[in-house]
Amino acid sequence: MEFKFKAIGVIHSCFTTKGEAPIQGSFHRDANGKVEVFAEFSEGLQDIELFSNVILIYHFDRASEVHLVRRPFLDDASHGIFATRHPCRPNGIGLSIVRLLRREGNLLMVSGIDVLDGTPLLDIKPYVPRFDSVPEASEGWFTGKGKREKPAGRE
Amino acid sequence: MEFKFKAIGVIHSCFTTKGEAPIQGSFHRDANGKVEVFAEFSEGLQDIELFSNVILIYHFDRASEVHLVRRPFLDDASHGIFATRHPCRPNGIGLSIVRLLRREGNLLMVSGIDVLDGTPLLDIKPYVPRFDSVPEASEGWFTGKGKREKPAGRE
Repeated sequence: MEFKFKAIGVIHSCFTTKGEAPIQGSFHRDANGKVEVFAEFSEGLQDIELFSNVILIYHFDRASEVHLVRRPFLDDASHGIFATRHPCRPNGIGLSIVRLLRREGNLLMVSGIDVLDGTPLLDIKPYVPRFDSVPEASEGWFTGKGKREKPAGRE
Repeated sequence: MEFKFKAIGVIHSCFTTKGEAPIQGSFHRDANGKVEVFAEFSEGLQDIELFSNVILIYHFDRASEVHLVRRPFLDDASHGIFATRHPCRPNGIGLSIVRLLRREGNLLMVSGIDVLDGTPLLDIKPYVPRFDSVPEASEGWFTGKGKREKPAGRE
């Protein structure tokens, strides 16, 4: 079963190499970016400016080889790919929750971005705390794993 | 720019028609479901059981016509599709945060499911409150819009 999706826009950020991109946007809340929605889809942005946060869904277009079990950036133990947020996944679909600073026509100015410049955008959804915020959720193996440099030589 | 994704599994739920499926899983926290990951990807589930909540990304395979501006289920005013969670989107990618009750091999037993039975699964990511929980986010036009029946005749 295969499904085809198309880019509805492109994400612009200050991160041009994988080494520069933060491990998670929440570690870099001041990283600003610009989400460009292609003109043919811009009508779909109506009222997005009512939301303080949005969910970006995008394609990890520069991801390399998929390993079902691997060491993620934040741990030296291996975990299954579905228990990590690593970009090299069976389907290279990325998800980031960003703060929406303002909208200028078909452009969304956002902060807390963690994606590479030029990343193809697949979808935008409004972040609704009633649906999406689970502060009491467990952190699994992320417990106690704080922000750190990406380990050298690790994709 | 087109991207091909494949089903990595299938979501089983008690909702066989669009009318039965809840508008949001958080309105139906007791709705249980079963996420089946195909055998070839099951190794990637290692350690997923450490998490209390997971993010399911799936394909809205029974979505109908896309309208860039439409009336969602929870409001009688129209909004841009990217300011709603409606299934009929330019790319039919769905996102649900569910509670992970337990894992049995390549099956995840979950609750708070809001997807149709047989929905193709594209990805699973661990829900990590540090990255994903923004309780202070605004609710936009969802403010004051509580659970209600899906309006008759509205796709």
